[in-house]
Amino acid sequence: MTRRLLLATRNPKKLAELRRILAAGVGSADLDIVGLDDVPPYQEAPETGATFADNALLKARAAARHTGLPAVADDSGLTVDALGGMPGVLSARWAGRSRDDDANLRLVLDQVADVPDDRRGAAFVCAAALVTPDGTEQVVEERLAGVLTRNPRGTGGFGYDPIFQPHGDTRTTAEMSPAEKDAISHRGRAFRALAPHIAAALQDSGTGPGC
Amino acid sequence: MTRRLLLATRNPKKLAELRRILAAGVGSADLDIVGLDDVPPYQEAPETGATFADNALLKARAAARHTGLPAVADDSGLTVDALGGMPGVLSARWAGRSRDDDANLRLVLDQVADVPDDRRGAAFVCAAALVTPDGTEQVVEERLAGVLTRNPRGTGGFGYDPIFQPHGDTRTTAEMSPAEKDAISHRGRAFRALAPHIAAALQDSGTGPGC
Repeated sequence: MTRRLLLATRNPKKLAELRRILAAGVGSADLDIVGLDDVPPYQEAPETGATFADNALLKARAAARHTGLPAVADDSGLTVDALGGMPGVLSARWAGRSRDDDANLRLVLDQVADVPDDRRGAAFVCAAALVTPDGTEQVVEERLAGVLTRNPRGTGGFGYDPIFQPHGDTRTTAEMSPAEKDAISHRGRAFRALAPHIAAALQDSGTGPGC
Repeated sequence: MTRRLLLATRNPKKLAELRRILAAGVGSADLDIVGLDDVPPYQEAPETGATFADNALLKARAAARHTGLPAVADDSGLTVDALGGMPGVLSARWAGRSRDDDANLRLVLDQVADVPDDRRGAAFVCAAALVTPDGTEQVVEERLAGVLTRNPRGTGGFGYDPIFQPHGDTRTTAEMSPAEKDAISHRGRAFRALAPHIAAALQDSGTGPGC
């Protein structure tokens, strides 16, 4: 039978990235990974948590409760040392709620324009949560450390990828192939760590209660 | 003889505020408080410090070195709990280097729009530094704690005054008279704490070395 898993996101690039990672970690046979645009609409949880883990759990709980499906959600962002750890949980709306990725990353570059090279440390952080309809919860958090560049470079990825260069590499994550990025990224690591729990949850939901 | 003191700022509102506070604390008789627009131009220190105190000292040192006058500088800003202590030292350029007070405070309001009332704590912080031509340095830091409002209120003051409400008051600092604000403000407190040191420095510079 087909196993269905809900990824609680409307971001098509994030959905594609997570499908790719989870297909490798959970196994793609009979696995139907759907996004929020594929299920009946419900009142989504506002992302008001103070931490990435709070927000990932809020989103996954709401998704599981309203759909009856095992639900996975992540909350990811960029933490910049010279910005006191921000944009952090506000990464997606840093330049304002109506602005886009390009406005967000240009604002960060502008804010840290006078910050010298030895204080440009940053990290991508991802908290990934799994909540099953029976209330089982798992959350993992992973990070990728690096530095902010002076200018955007590369066209891959999304979000702050063009201005983030991981330690030990001369490229931004926007200059890497999807597979290269998945192998090292905060989101790749978090979802691979969550994959065994997802596989177990799908097994449980596949056989159903009492079987 | 006239005593001259340099306030290392080009912000006319800040200059007026500091003149008011220092005239009360140091005594206005024969006191000539000049700003950066009143002295020959020199290479000003970039505000690249990681703290308010660092930046105040950088600015006062450069001003004293290049003018031969006792120099006072402040670095002030808003620290917002939900923004990891930012805008902090980046308060003046939060929305970008070419933006103004209104753009800065609107960006902060937008960034914390979904932050609930019990996590909207903030503080105005001021570090004030005095550097004399003979190399004596003093720096003090004071703060005014409060909360962020949901919308701007009031037309007084400058910077983030319209969105900052001190604890124990129902008004923003932009709804207070200049005298009311001076009495409680971070900058009022810091400059009053610095005033005895300024008075002593002016006494020394008035009599001159060896007299």
